Amino acid sequence: MLNRNDPIPLYEQLKSIIEDDIKNGKLRYNDQIPSERELCQQFNVSRITVRQAISLAEKEGLVQRLHGVGTFVAKPKIQQELTTINNFKSTLEKQGLLASTQYHDSKVISSDFQLSRLLHIDVMDKVLNLQLVGLGDDSPIVFYNSYFEYNIGMKIKESADLAIEKNIPFSTLDLYENVELAPTHVEQTFESVAANEHVSDILHVETGFPLLRITSIVFQDTLPLEYKESYYRGDKYRFFITRKW
Amino acid sequence: MLNRNDPIPLYEQLKSIIEDDIKNGKLRYNDQIPSERELCQQFNVSRITVRQAISLAEKEGLVQRLHGVGTFVAKPKIQQELTTINNFKSTLEKQGLLASTQYHDSKVISSDFQLSRLLHIDVMDKVLNLQLVGLGDDSPIVFYNSYFEYNIGMKIKESADLAIEKNIPFSTLDLYENVELAPTHVEQTFESVAANEHVSDILHVETGFPLLRITSIVFQDTLPLEYKESYYRGDKYRFFITRKW
Repeated sequence: MLNRNDPIPLYEQLKSIIEDDIKNGKLRYNDQIPSERELCQQFNVSRITVRQAISLAEKEGLVQRLHGVGTFVAKPKIQQELTTINNFKSTLEKQGLLASTQYHDSKVISSDFQLSRLLHIDVMDKVLNLQLVGLGDDSPIVFYNSYFEYNIGMKIKESADLAIEKNIPFSTLDLYENVELAPTHVEQTFESVAANEHVSDILHVETGFPLLRITSIVFQDTLPLEYKESYYRGDKYRFFITRKW
Repeated sequence: MLNRNDPIPLYEQLKSIIEDDIKNGKLRYNDQIPSERELCQQFNVSRITVRQAISLAEKEGLVQRLHGVGTFVAKPKIQQELTTINNFKSTLEKQGLLASTQYHDSKVISSDFQLSRLLHIDVMDKVLNLQLVGLGDDSPIVFYNSYFEYNIGMKIKESADLAIEKNIPFSTLDLYENVELAPTHVEQTFESVAANEHVSDILHVETGFPLLRITSIVFQDTLPLEYKESYYRGDKYRFFITRKW
């Protein structure tokens, strides 16, 4: 029930009730949620409050509005286990999504100071920049921006070309087994960032939209094979981990 | 150098140059960055572009503006290793920040359906809700919203009261060793969310600000001891992990 004495605004309380119903299983994927009018009556609140609640629920990826039809419970977020290296296709398939991968861009650039340090190469050495978009059910979910030392990059690109030609979904991590490279580990940082113009275009979200940025360096022993910045849509993706005491 | 043919807006390119200078070590913590006028001249761009670049750099936590004084390189983000359970105080101290912990709220509530399932208790059973704020150098960095079965919660609260009285910074994970509970593992999910009104007030950010939300269940074998939602300021905190192949 809504609590009018609570400092939490009514629309957030109403959003939490909808969220709980989804988590409880009272509302399931693809169920239609009650109409604005029904919610106004049931909770004795204004239409503005109901609209704000639904708009917030939509932002959080809980529901999806189909104009002229109604509002429906959205697919739950994609979950990826953190402690093992996962395959992009199988992670999405577990959530019932059809995965696919597209090129956004692929180009040879000169290494700047930062890339040189990250990839253990000289400044001005050739670097392959591979920009990929990972999609689930044809919606962009993740933008991968990878940098490789040129010779390594060309092998990876060849493997990527083949996967795209054959319509096999992948992330760069899935390609190493196809080339004569054997990564041993990956160092990653996780942070929450606001989408800039460039990435918001690619992921079909507004500037400022919350994204999970994962910065990775893939190593074969002490040799860095790849430096990658991945941007996941915050409303579509989450990671999970079990940590021991 | 700025590239006027690049689809990336000039202000983002300029922000990236400042970011690179910080990552390269050309600009260090507390260094003043060049004035707006100097940046306009150096890069031959308008003052609007320079202001947008600095504003973006500030949003990303790279620089800090002191009004009437200038713009300075900010402290780097707090990094926390993911694979081990870390102590709040030592994580912050490693980054040279003075940690502290405050109560935001503490109350006894009745369990709803969702909490009952998470904590393995009955609906309407008493639950202790402990809301804490973790600060670094007196700025709020994380909001912890924890739920405990009542008897467990009262023990934890007693330990929290004592820590606050003695001015010892902590997160709930640090308190278990003070009570006769021995957690074995914690299950966590990581996602990027926009700050709602409630949390934005607590963390001193605007609504919509990108936050890292970590949902945790702390277990002693199969018994859930605590359900917790933590909200970290995206500009202040990041997590890192090394994953093996």
